[in-house]
Amino acid sequence: MQFTSFMEAALAEARLAEAAGEVPVGAVVVRDAEIIGRGRNATRAACDPSAHAEIMAIRAACTALGQDRLTGCDLYVTLEPCAMCAGAIAHARIARLYFGASDPKSGGVTVGARVFEHRQSHHHPEVYDGISSDEASELLRRFFKEKRL
Amino acid sequence: MQFTSFMEAALAEARLAEAAGEVPVGAVVVRDAEIIGRGRNATRAACDPSAHAEIMAIRAACTALGQDRLTGCDLYVTLEPCAMCAGAIAHARIARLYFGASDPKSGGVTVGARVFEHRQSHHHPEVYDGISSDEASELLRRFFKEKRL
Repeated sequence: MQFTSFMEAALAEARLAEAAGEVPVGAVVVRDAEIIGRGRNATRAACDPSAHAEIMAIRAACTALGQDRLTGCDLYVTLEPCAMCAGAIAHARIARLYFGASDPKSGGVTVGARVFEHRQSHHHPEVYDGISSDEASELLRRFFKEKRL
Repeated sequence: MQFTSFMEAALAEARLAEAAGEVPVGAVVVRDAEIIGRGRNATRAACDPSAHAEIMAIRAACTALGQDRLTGCDLYVTLEPCAMCAGAIAHARIARLYFGASDPKSGGVTVGARVFEHRQSHHHPEVYDGISSDEASELLRRFFKEKRL
């Protein structure tokens, strides 16, 4: 399975979030070319401000493996992680982070807090951006446009 | 109830974490001088790298209130929050953050990512540090000393 297919699985999670009235962001955790955790933004339904797609996917993968680290695993997410999620990705020891749309307004990887770039972050994943970013951006644009109506 | 009493409640949570073999950090969320959420570090037991004391306390308080924001609430935590937890504190709209020991090695508030200091953080709580910091530090020092034996 190619990395675009894993991002497609993350986009499917984002669409499920959209259908539930949540900000449409989705993520999957992959180990040995297999999805071991899926997550979508669910902050409202879960009454949990930490229930972003990345953290939900990490929690699902950790539950599946029975451990609190995901060493050697990859994370695919449709939007650039915020500082909170970047921190969680570092704590989980994710090996490679693939994200779709950039997030200049709220991101914490390539802008703002740039969480991985400080010595207080004890792990720095490889980062690949811009994967299926048009589709990820379009989902978010549509969601916020409809919210304004 | 004074803020030292709320920090004492956070320290009690840290001691429970220590007794469970987890890194001893504890937190409470306070609204109108009443504790509405308690949390302690539980990353190992919960198989969840996001299960830091602050996020556990925020999740408990949000569940209690049935909402994903804690506007007007305060958070007391025995150790300076990391970048992940600082991000969660901003997302939750915590009004005032009181923390005990500083964390130059892994903190994300006064060092490193300094999460609240970027425009990508859409909320900046008031921050008060050094509260009961000797006791919070001693708990952590003892834990890591015993781990090394």
